[in-house]
Amino acid sequence: MNGAEAFIETLADCGVDTCFANPGTSEMQLVAAVDRSPRMRAVLGLFEGVVTGAADGYGRMADKPAITLLHLGPGLGNGLANLHNARRAGSPVINMVGDHATYHRHYDAPLTSDVTGVAAPMSDWVRISRSERDLAQAGAEAFSVAQSYPGKIATVIVPADHAWTEGAAKVAPLPVPPTAKTPQEAIDQAAAALRDSDGPSVLFLGGRALREDALHHAGRIAAATGCRLICETFAARNQRGAGRVAVERLPYFGEQAEAYLAEFKTLVFVGCEPPVSFFAYPGKPSWLSPPGATIVRMASMREDALAALEGLATALNAPAQPALVQKSIIVEAAPGKLNSANLGAIFAELLPEGAIVADEGATQGGAAYGMSAGSKPHDWLQLTGGSIGSGLPVAVGAAVACPDRKVIALHGDGGAMYTNQALWTMAREKLDVTTIILNNGSYAILNIELARVGAQNPGPKALAMLDLTNPAINWTKLSEGMGVPAVRVETAEEFRAALADALAHKGPRLIEAML
Amino acid sequence: MNGAEAFIETLADCGVDTCFANPGTSEMQLVAAVDRSPRMRAVLGLFEGVVTGAADGYGRMADKPAITLLHLGPGLGNGLANLHNARRAGSPVINMVGDHATYHRHYDAPLTSDVTGVAAPMSDWVRISRSERDLAQAGAEAFSVAQSYPGKIATVIVPADHAWTEGAAKVAPLPVPPTAKTPQEAIDQAAAALRDSDGPSVLFLGGRALREDALHHAGRIAAATGCRLICETFAARNQRGAGRVAVERLPYFGEQAEAYLAEFKTLVFVGCEPPVSFFAYPGKPSWLSPPGATIVRMASMREDALAALEGLATALNAPAQPALVQKSIIVEAAPGKLNSANLGAIFAELLPEGAIVADEGATQGGAAYGMSAGSKPHDWLQLTGGSIGSGLPVAVGAAVACPDRKVIALHGDGGAMYTNQALWTMAREKLDVTTIILNNGSYAILNIELARVGAQNPGPKALAMLDLTNPAINWTKLSEGMGVPAVRVETAEEFRAALADALAHKGPRLIEAML
Repeated sequence: MNGAEAFIETLADCGVDTCFANPGTSEMQLVAAVDRSPRMRAVLGLFEGVVTGAADGYGRMADKPAITLLHLGPGLGNGLANLHNARRAGSPVINMVGDHATYHRHYDAPLTSDVTGVAAPMSDWVRISRSERDLAQAGAEAFSVAQSYPGKIATVIVPADHAWTEGAAKVAPLPVPPTAKTPQEAIDQAAAALRDSDGPSVLFLGGRALREDALHHAGRIAAATGCRLICETFAARNQRGAGRVAVERLPYFGEQAEAYLAEFKTLVFVGCEPPVSFFAYPGKPSWLSPPGATIVRMASMREDALAALEGLATALNAPAQPALVQKSIIVEAAPGKLNSANLGAIFAELLPEGAIVADEGATQGGAAYGMSAGSKPHDWLQLTGGSIGSGLPVAVGAAVACPDRKVIALHGDGGAMYTNQALWTMAREKLDVTTIILNNGSYAILNIELARVGAQNPGPKALAMLDLTNPAINWTKLSEGMGVPAVRVETAEEFRAALADALAHKGPRLIEAML
Repeated sequence: MNGAEAFIETLADCGVDTCFANPGTSEMQLVAAVDRSPRMRAVLGLFEGVVTGAADGYGRMADKPAITLLHLGPGLGNGLANLHNARRAGSPVINMVGDHATYHRHYDAPLTSDVTGVAAPMSDWVRISRSERDLAQAGAEAFSVAQSYPGKIATVIVPADHAWTEGAAKVAPLPVPPTAKTPQEAIDQAAAALRDSDGPSVLFLGGRALREDALHHAGRIAAATGCRLICETFAARNQRGAGRVAVERLPYFGEQAEAYLAEFKTLVFVGCEPPVSFFAYPGKPSWLSPPGATIVRMASMREDALAALEGLATALNAPAQPALVQKSIIVEAAPGKLNSANLGAIFAELLPEGAIVADEGATQGGAAYGMSAGSKPHDWLQLTGGSIGSGLPVAVGAAVACPDRKVIALHGDGGAMYTNQALWTMAREKLDVTTIILNNGSYAILNIELARVGAQNPGPKALAMLDLTNPAINWTKLSEGMGVPAVRVETAEEFRAALADALAHKGPRLIEAML
């Protein structure tokens, strides 16, 4: 077999079964190898940001990596933003990036670029294959790295001649490194801090600490100590809803987050680091934890969150039953003109059990998040790295990973434009995704930020740069143009009917919610 | 004034008057500074690839840089592919990329990334400002670098606190480095080689050698020596059409290019390096010039092409009148079902004087190029770096640079999807761009390449990865969704009517040509 086949077969032996692809000429042998492997599904994206964002969503839901197939440095460049988000999510991803044949590089053909240089900033690990025989070995190593808890971005650069040369053979999968465990000393320190807190305490959760099993122990710890449970503002995957342990969400804006945390005397962190403001602002704090409080960084995102929380519950001799179990709640939606509040209420009421929400709702999506706390149990995926244009691709990946679950993409209009091509992949693969575009015709968050960074009295050019209404984007036409049936709604009643209809049917739909 | 204002005012003093922008929170002070400067036009793109591709098109037509405004590492990442194309075109571009405030970086907030690392692979020069006072100096340096002949990619990374801190002042523009001149020795060597050639000779042209003034001298050299004139396959800007010196285009596929050049005993290169195949293929050559031929690299892309050709003409005592002056040609278009040939003939016939063609026509666009050799004089801009998704943004930039000229984007459907957001900017700015989408529902070039790299008997998954008909993309709806009036045509008659109508009116239009 050739190098490409050995590489793909090795990854298939590792358990990888999905390839999100946007190939070019230098990747044709990899395309052919995926084609020949009955164990590998190929999903085409018409832009690389769709491909990498889909791998992120897939990784979050499948807890194993998909492969991305990308075309040299520029193709990888187009995928960087969503690799950034994936890396911040701790998602497992294997990038396979084609490059020129080794002997062709020095000719500096038009597409020649520093592929390693492009890969490095958004990868945890970069590896260039050294021969057609080495390519499969690189694949096995990439899987081992990508699968390191909770997940890493592993990039393999594949010179075309390594892919097409015969004489390669697949290699055995390598062991995945054992997950780091929190030392007992850190658990004991956290237990003492919570037990002896000189006032309100909080168990602050992120990463894998927001899975249902880990949250169960967090709820037990709350039952034992009376601590509050708060999570990072943007979580990779929060398993929430009625019957699960509920977690409060830290507000986005720094000064609100600082005020939210001000009362706490003790903060214990599991699965994340102490929060900082998303951006710096003149005269506003970056560090958000209260001065003088006891801070225990019990487990980083790379330590086993479930074991850490279970250990902490044990150290505290916590009861078996968790506190803070979420009750079922239905909020009534006000009729008439659609707004974020009645949209959120209807969304929360109709959200089906087991749904996966890919949330890049931005300024208009907050109500849907808040009101769905007591909806049927579901998974909520957020914009972990802050680079907008992630939600639609993440929805694609989640739907590929979980074909039996309804996926809902809740997306601001500004962010959705970056990777609108994801709709085409939804149509092509008949993915069971309902996309809700929150169309307010604006980069609304930036209108707020313009004032917050101290830019007073913005003039017409500045305001125009945040305005998307000239011309207004018609998402219904965009969606239909890419093969996804769409409907525009302006009232609560229309939204309810459209969402109910979309949820009652399999396959992609788009609802353009005019706000 | 604050750092951002000093930076923008310095660049305005340098003569920069256009900013293509896709800002985020960390760039709000730069947005405000552009807003306050009456000398600076702001053009919003809804995706960074539109922004950088527009700066490329602007630079090719204006011969001076526009600024791009990009949001941290991920935003810059989205712009890399078209910076790659711009760099290969030798276009002048100044990127201003926001970053976190200096004191905020170490907190590793979600959007923190290695901005310098992302910038380096596609920039000729990268500079981080060191203070609010230094920011203007960085701007002046960036202009000097960007304007270095024929143009370079200069990237300035702007920490937010440098932008917002008061106490800065603009600085005087720096001198632009003088353009390197070809040594007389190289000119004499080329003259001797052409004069004494032991068989057919060719003057091979690229970069600025394809401007009308330089081509005039190339034609004089042809008159003196009988050499042929051939240009690189993908040129940044070829000034062509009736009355101008005509240049043959090197074929794209390596073996065709090799055969095309096989007869030549002498090859003199001006404005580019000897051609190599775009990709490597098993058993096919990378180097395309004939073995044993005399090769003279007279002037690189960074040496003054006009002076070099004029000097060569003088050394050859060439006549004042050039040879190879293109005659006006009109090819008759076959009626009926639209295909690349009758589309090309109609396109060539209707092409208005002074038109600018942004060509990413790929497999279906070649006939339009060939048939328009004898059209009215026009500028033809091609995909210099091979990273598809450049043509629509280049058209945006060309239209901003040349508001009195008709711009025509001739674009394959696969490539146009990468940066479809460019249509929205055309509508917003009422740019005089007619976009022709060559809709064949396929990455057609990859179907050819799949066989060429030796992947025999491709299976359904491989073929599906090159197929864009499942679902078919409706470009008319996409275009209308972004505010550009559109029409779908299926016959030569419909295409002629639609193109004539678009050319008769100012403002953006899209013609979806079904092939």
